[in-house]
Amino acid sequence: MPKKVDHSKRREQIAKSTWEIISQKGIEHATTRKIAEETGISQSTLRYYFPTRKELLKFAMELLKENVGVRIKKIMEKDLPVLEKLVQLLMEITPYNDISRKEMEVWFAFITHGRKEDGFDLNYDDVLKVIELVLTTLEENDLLKKNISRDIELEKLYSLLDGLAIHALFNPERYTPSYIRSIIENHLMSMVVID
Amino acid sequence: MPKKVDHSKRREQIAKSTWEIISQKGIEHATTRKIAEETGISQSTLRYYFPTRKELLKFAMELLKENVGVRIKKIMEKDLPVLEKLVQLLMEITPYNDISRKEMEVWFAFITHGRKEDGFDLNYDDVLKVIELVLTTLEENDLLKKNISRDIELEKLYSLLDGLAIHALFNPERYTPSYIRSIIENHLMSMVVID
Repeated sequence: MPKKVDHSKRREQIAKSTWEIISQKGIEHATTRKIAEETGISQSTLRYYFPTRKELLKFAMELLKENVGVRIKKIMEKDLPVLEKLVQLLMEITPYNDISRKEMEVWFAFITHGRKEDGFDLNYDDVLKVIELVLTTLEENDLLKKNISRDIELEKLYSLLDGLAIHALFNPERYTPSYIRSIIENHLMSMVVID
Repeated sequence: MPKKVDHSKRREQIAKSTWEIISQKGIEHATTRKIAEETGISQSTLRYYFPTRKELLKFAMELLKENVGVRIKKIMEKDLPVLEKLVQLLMEITPYNDISRKEMEVWFAFITHGRKEDGFDLNYDDVLKVIELVLTTLEENDLLKKNISRDIELEKLYSLLDGLAIHALFNPERYTPSYIRSIIENHLMSMVVID
């Protein structure tokens, strides 16, 4: 009986091999040859799933975003005080542990890659969506300070989080999970009404 | 009479060609062949000034940092109110005009390049030095809020500025000079004593 292959699982394996190569060696080493090798399949099998390298890279990026999205959804469904939930949400878009570090390395490679390769349109929208969610949640819970510009608060939080994520990525010794948390907590508290 | 070549000028020309190629095509295209071509010299002349590509890239990066340093020094020497001076200082480390945009593109390429290539040790220290200067200037002028953690304020400003710089680099239409300024001003004001 021929071995039955779960196609979506196989596509996922290929994407994971792609992340592995990108995070260890850089995106320029993520050739279809090396990705096939890392997955343990032939290049023609790889081409069956992804006719072009570009399609493969796009899928690998989308899957990564999806994974982060699932974790964010889980946090939002947790039974926690609002501010604690928002801190955990913001932590999720920084490289505070091994999984998020690897994701961030790959994401960062895609972002910088996307700038030079035509038609590979990527942006920071997914991070911005999380930031929007934080602002909206603060507003819905009547926690956002009055007399402040929502736009500017959004830009500040957005910039701070992306900057922090990059600093933590480059310097994990300095940016321990508890240090990252204290920076996030401090900034979040500066946005909320103190009662 | 043989043409007299100003060696430091020539090295500068080579560095500028390197920036040009990196900003237009990416660092992977900044080969010694293409850099020599862009400068209008032979590859052997290039090798006379820079025996290896790594030395050339290091020099190009150092010169870029030096240029930013000179502009920062000039701002600090200006006869301006302290807070205005600090806003201008912080603007200088974001891509708010064509010159700083190109520098930032090159710097960003070096930073990401530096992560993967051994022995090419680069970090964000130069931005951090500007942030330190802002904090110290606020303190010296008795403008920094009391009962706050200097370390956390430093991290927040540092993250915010780097994040903002990257967002502005990727999305110049959204981040106009006046929008960048309003974000910086708003955050700076949140750090200072209001009298």
